[in-house]
Amino acid sequence: MAAPSTGTCGLMERSVRERVPPLLTDLYQFTMAYAYWRAGRHQEPAVFELFFRDNPFDGGFSLFAGLHDCLLFLRSFRITDRDVEFLRFILPPNTDPAFFDFLRGLDCSTVTVRSVPEGSVVFARVPLMEVEGPLAVVQLLETSLLCLVNYASLVCSNAARFRLAAGHQRKLLEMGLRRAQGPDGGLTASRYTHIGGFDLTSNVQAGFLFGIPVAGTMAHSYVTSFSSLEEVWPQTLVTASGDPDPVDVISLTKVWLRRVCELLGAELGKIHEGELAAFLSYAIAYPQNFLPVIDSYSVECSGLLNFCAVALALCELGYKPVGVRLDSGDLCRQSMEVRRIFRLCSEQFSASTFNSLTIVGSNNISEETMTELNKKANEINVVGVGTHLVTCTKQPSLGCVYKLVEVRGRPRMKISEDPKKTTVAGRKAIYRLLDADGHPFLDLLCLNVEPPPEAGCTLICYPLGGDNSAVSVTPAQVTCLRREVFLKGQTFGAGVNTLKRTLVRSTSKRTLVRFANGLNTNWP
Amino acid sequence: MAAPSTGTCGLMERSVRERVPPLLTDLYQFTMAYAYWRAGRHQEPAVFELFFRDNPFDGGFSLFAGLHDCLLFLRSFRITDRDVEFLRFILPPNTDPAFFDFLRGLDCSTVTVRSVPEGSVVFARVPLMEVEGPLAVVQLLETSLLCLVNYASLVCSNAARFRLAAGHQRKLLEMGLRRAQGPDGGLTASRYTHIGGFDLTSNVQAGFLFGIPVAGTMAHSYVTSFSSLEEVWPQTLVTASGDPDPVDVISLTKVWLRRVCELLGAELGKIHEGELAAFLSYAIAYPQNFLPVIDSYSVECSGLLNFCAVALALCELGYKPVGVRLDSGDLCRQSMEVRRIFRLCSEQFSASTFNSLTIVGSNNISEETMTELNKKANEINVVGVGTHLVTCTKQPSLGCVYKLVEVRGRPRMKISEDPKKTTVAGRKAIYRLLDADGHPFLDLLCLNVEPPPEAGCTLICYPLGGDNSAVSVTPAQVTCLRREVFLKGQTFGAGVNTLKRTLVRSTSKRTLVRFANGLNTNWP
Repeated sequence: MAAPSTGTCGLMERSVRERVPPLLTDLYQFTMAYAYWRAGRHQEPAVFELFFRDNPFDGGFSLFAGLHDCLLFLRSFRITDRDVEFLRFILPPNTDPAFFDFLRGLDCSTVTVRSVPEGSVVFARVPLMEVEGPLAVVQLLETSLLCLVNYASLVCSNAARFRLAAGHQRKLLEMGLRRAQGPDGGLTASRYTHIGGFDLTSNVQAGFLFGIPVAGTMAHSYVTSFSSLEEVWPQTLVTASGDPDPVDVISLTKVWLRRVCELLGAELGKIHEGELAAFLSYAIAYPQNFLPVIDSYSVECSGLLNFCAVALALCELGYKPVGVRLDSGDLCRQSMEVRRIFRLCSEQFSASTFNSLTIVGSNNISEETMTELNKKANEINVVGVGTHLVTCTKQPSLGCVYKLVEVRGRPRMKISEDPKKTTVAGRKAIYRLLDADGHPFLDLLCLNVEPPPEAGCTLICYPLGGDNSAVSVTPAQVTCLRREVFLKGQTFGAGVNTLKRTLVRSTSKRTLVRFANGLNTNWP
Repeated sequence: MAAPSTGTCGLMERSVRERVPPLLTDLYQFTMAYAYWRAGRHQEPAVFELFFRDNPFDGGFSLFAGLHDCLLFLRSFRITDRDVEFLRFILPPNTDPAFFDFLRGLDCSTVTVRSVPEGSVVFARVPLMEVEGPLAVVQLLETSLLCLVNYASLVCSNAARFRLAAGHQRKLLEMGLRRAQGPDGGLTASRYTHIGGFDLTSNVQAGFLFGIPVAGTMAHSYVTSFSSLEEVWPQTLVTASGDPDPVDVISLTKVWLRRVCELLGAELGKIHEGELAAFLSYAIAYPQNFLPVIDSYSVECSGLLNFCAVALALCELGYKPVGVRLDSGDLCRQSMEVRRIFRLCSEQFSASTFNSLTIVGSNNISEETMTELNKKANEINVVGVGTHLVTCTKQPSLGCVYKLVEVRGRPRMKISEDPKKTTVAGRKAIYRLLDADGHPFLDLLCLNVEPPPEAGCTLICYPLGGDNSAVSVTPAQVTCLRREVFLKGQTFGAGVNTLKRTLVRSTSKRTLVRFANGLNTNWP
């Protein structure tokens, strides 16, 4: 079935205009813009750079994300009459009224942006975006661009770390919407964790807007809402092959439950009838998509046995049950036991489907527990991650900054008593140097006026943050890391639509993680 | 000047509808809704409770926030044809088409919500909201309500902790927009930190939508964009009293700079001319609002001296300079030195305005550094807080949950191998018991069917999480903690508009913090 034509591209552009109006910025951007305007400097050509000072999570890299939203923001940036009315109210009363005429209708048609591509592996202190334009205008863009890049890059990098910790076999499900910073935080998380390496999201709107595969079946509340088999309705199911006579699936399941309890030496009396009713109801509603959460009461005394009984009934009717979800306790130990029972059922009842059942695990998973999962024996196929993924518990902010490096062609810098906060003056070019195997091994910052490095030619460079001693390197290939993405009010080259496609397809995802692995084996 | 009529209320309701569409939820809400519908249970009356299991930040309390957005969400909740079209695409292909007819046009007209008031001091495990309605509908609301309450309450509580740490003298400025989880995270942070005790925000849109006072003057980029006094334009300023002859303010400032350097034994040669130009330009643009950031190069060798010179020139012309901002280094030590110089200037140059200058400090302030500020000698009047406030570094998620407690009048519970995750079955009433001084000392959970406690009557209760031993208490007053806020599709009693007014005025703020202090002296 084809995806409905949702017109999501137009929706997203409208949505960015509403989510990021020009007033969603720090007041000082407007007071500075006024001071520039008053001094007649507002049209002076200026260049800002956006970068972060430290790789997040004490790690070795970051992914750059949020560019797509930045471009939509720039394209729709326009100060309306209503904005001006409010600014007139909050700016000091002696503000020259002619300034408001300047603001009214201001847009980004004179702004040029050069940026590393969305989803790139990047490093601390490398200028990721260069924003060029009239001083007052590029100043006004600061907070919004930072807001759009900071969290997107952080959560995308966090997802990549979860992916690296999980390895390539396990599927990863993002389910953090309820723990994010409000609706937009949740949506941004779903979107950029997908780019960072997650396969699925629980967030329906993220599926709608970005085409990310959506997953989910039931919560504990569904299970606990049932108390007896009398609540199961309808009580019959037709076979998968479409036999006209519906089968009494309750009776069938009761038979299977007895057989399962016998096989496992379990007590029928400990089975929770409400849970069985919930599983049966769900299976009757979705016989092809049966994956219940089995820890509402007790996995081993009730949930697992109820699952097996219903799943075996489904198998008998020609359906393929999908699996189970574990949401509390020791996931590794439980998954081993669950798998053992599945294998036993498969053998004893000739139910080969039981050999390929999925076990989903979700219980406050962090990067550490994900790493441990790979060290301990377990049978978990899909891991659901919420809080620690979307809130980036280990470091909940990336700390991108936006610094002025050139005005009227003259380099500018800020000196600080904290040496790390001192900026590097002047416009730069960024090259990624690759070795003979095509592996990137160095990102090179040059001043724009310096000649670019050439493949095969040895060059001397000074590692940032090093002791000023020079290193000599010979790249086999040289690529330019940034490209022009916004010019004269329009996205350029890889336009918004193209970027969106890159985003929503998972092509970039695996490539990135491979790249992250290849670039430095000590990562993350 | 009156605030422009922005029609923000309608804006906010539209904005919530767009920010929190019914699809912004976990997929399993829809699969469960289908299973309920398929079993004919979707209309069964059900009750969910929203609560958190632990007070955030290892503290003794939380503030409850987000109710206003929840009410707007409930009021605008409606599943559209476009939503249905997408759901048809992602739900399993055998979903009965009649289910989509049920969904189409679904709203909250049959839902009733009882809630503690926005901004209340609340405690772990107390059900803050009770959501009652048809099983399928109240199930569908879970993720959105959690998403709207979780971060709002967390960041509001965090702000209250910063306020308690800062004491009542200092003004607090929220400036976290660029570090929040995207645009909406930033806006939510501005809004709820104001309720939690912050005085000001840098976020213009938060001023526009919620009437929060907005503050800010300049960033380092403004200062570094200037390199010489030639860039200052205009070079004159009329006096505050409106003399017709403009004064050459550059020459005047140069005179003052020489006098300041002489007084302090500072070297004129170390003064950064670009910084002086920046300060002068800003002062000419905003002579009544002069508050520059003074650490772009060196506070003691350049920034402070430049400030004094420009501020003394302003004083001579009859203006009142406002103060300075420090953004790096040891804020306490620097503020002491800055204040010393201000006093010296006041005495030497008879500039009494220098006795009431404001010193703003902002440099990665956390709750800990805020507490330290109160222990160390310093002269900081306003503290700007960004990252640690809006990302809630100490605990970036509150972990509210939404649990089913009753279906068709029958209590429901979930049992878990993790005892903390076991729910308390049945509908409850929550009373706040106050002592003879009017101080609240206990929140009491009863089953709805139990008689309410009475003032003056001793009652026996069992502390949650205690060892099951009973405590006997005699309240002097009893208040009911929750009230009906949503009924038949409409906000009820304290409607949305009233709530909004409560929100945007700072009345609640101080009361809350006093309350938090009064309730338990060991807080937070």
